[in-house]
Amino acid sequence: MTLASAERTTAVLSGTALAKDIRARVSTTAAELPAAGTEPRLAVVVATDDESTAWYVRSIAKAAAGTGIRCDVVDLGASATPERIRGELGTLSEDPAVHGIVLQTPLPGAASLEDLATAITPEKDVDGANPVSLGRLSAGLPAFAPATAAAVAELLEHHEILLSGRRAVVVGRSNVVGRPAAQLLLRRDATVTVCHRYTRDLAAHTRQAEVLVVAVGKVGLIGAEHVSPGAVVIDVGTNPTEDGGLVGDVDADAVTGLAAGLTPVPGGVGPVTTALLLRHTVESAWRSTA
Amino acid sequence: MTLASAERTTAVLSGTALAKDIRARVSTTAAELPAAGTEPRLAVVVATDDESTAWYVRSIAKAAAGTGIRCDVVDLGASATPERIRGELGTLSEDPAVHGIVLQTPLPGAASLEDLATAITPEKDVDGANPVSLGRLSAGLPAFAPATAAAVAELLEHHEILLSGRRAVVVGRSNVVGRPAAQLLLRRDATVTVCHRYTRDLAAHTRQAEVLVVAVGKVGLIGAEHVSPGAVVIDVGTNPTEDGGLVGDVDADAVTGLAAGLTPVPGGVGPVTTALLLRHTVESAWRSTA
Repeated sequence: MTLASAERTTAVLSGTALAKDIRARVSTTAAELPAAGTEPRLAVVVATDDESTAWYVRSIAKAAAGTGIRCDVVDLGASATPERIRGELGTLSEDPAVHGIVLQTPLPGAASLEDLATAITPEKDVDGANPVSLGRLSAGLPAFAPATAAAVAELLEHHEILLSGRRAVVVGRSNVVGRPAAQLLLRRDATVTVCHRYTRDLAAHTRQAEVLVVAVGKVGLIGAEHVSPGAVVIDVGTNPTEDGGLVGDVDADAVTGLAAGLTPVPGGVGPVTTALLLRHTVESAWRSTA
Repeated sequence: MTLASAERTTAVLSGTALAKDIRARVSTTAAELPAAGTEPRLAVVVATDDESTAWYVRSIAKAAAGTGIRCDVVDLGASATPERIRGELGTLSEDPAVHGIVLQTPLPGAASLEDLATAITPEKDVDGANPVSLGRLSAGLPAFAPATAAAVAELLEHHEILLSGRRAVVVGRSNVVGRPAAQLLLRRDATVTVCHRYTRDLAAHTRQAEVLVVAVGKVGLIGAEHVSPGAVVIDVGTNPTEDGGLVGDVDADAVTGLAAGLTPVPGGVGPVTTALLLRHTVESAWRSTA
């Protein structure tokens, strides 16, 4: 090993310990809820045959069960119409026994998450999919942030990465991750740049980042040339590999030794996201007892 | 004049012709509405004694009258409670004769615009103050953008300033201008950076801007050292001067000869903002007849 490469080590910014900690607190709260008159319950609405989605939904259901939250998977089938999905979301919104509602993507055909999610009442919108939640969030009013974007912020806080006054760059501008993550970083007083497919010279932007958040869904998008020495890199990408594993958007080998810290995939943002969905659900359940 | 200073001229990106054009079209639409069964009506809710606010509200009322829109100024007085304001906004939201509702700032004491504006029904939220409008806007769903932010986008389009793939920097992150302006620039495919009071080395960021939007409310905030040659600068600041005039956030003398274009203050963003409030009101009135 040369001196130069020994000079910098890249911390693995794991999410597993944080997720475990969040789930433990969720369990405690969930156990107290029956005495307050309710049992916490999450409903996940699915309208796809996609196998990796089914796997993800099972992992949510398992995590929920592990913390004492009942999780109903409402499978409407891949041929469900937008009207049918909207109707189901409305029914769940009105059901006092349900505290959290997640509309799982992908959706069939022309159905739009943003449009359908307006049928999820904000009080139960634990994945922050309803544009009302995003608006309240960016206005600084109480609302549930999309769980993945919230997981980015929680991970940074957990690993004591300062944000105030620092240059944060978000690559990706989706409504579920990029945009809300940018809002959350801005609320924490970072100077925030949002890059996307039309950004010219992506590397010139990302190299300015002290904190780099990548949420595109493209293997190998971020390499050594995109990262400045000492940057903290949060990899939100979860791309399935041929052998059934997961890989992020960041070339971890290329960035290791360069970045000050990097979240692993899997084991970084993912487990924190699921844990936050559960935390949001018990928070919603608590408020319903008030 | 030296050769160097003669090499570049700074275009004055006036808003007066654009505002006149928008108002002319509003007049045409407003004149057609009675035949469709309604008369366009805007309500401006005021709860302050502030003299410059009173001046601004009168200018809206005058512009409305000039286009055939009835404008009711609902003055609740500087001692109005948040409950009183909220109640009035609710009443106006339910009144079928009212098509546009503006809650004017400043507000008394602890009243928060974001909080109170949730009482404005989104259909009539012609100044995009309700967080629902902001959320729908950033999710790409139909909504009224805050008129000032929309005016920034309209001015850029009117003067044929391309945005796709270009570096835009917004200075200021208010819910009424900075944040929504950043959303609108992002939707037009610019790479967008939001700077604010905690940004370190503001000039290093703003010098990277091909399009610079300044919305802070601080005289002389932006000087020659903040602007790269050839940048387009949109000055949203409207700071009252001692002699009763208005001045922006940009030192226009310093930037002239350097920027490719600069909006004047007054006569830039301001008149377009008022014209867009009126356009939103007739749009809302049209939809109410459908």
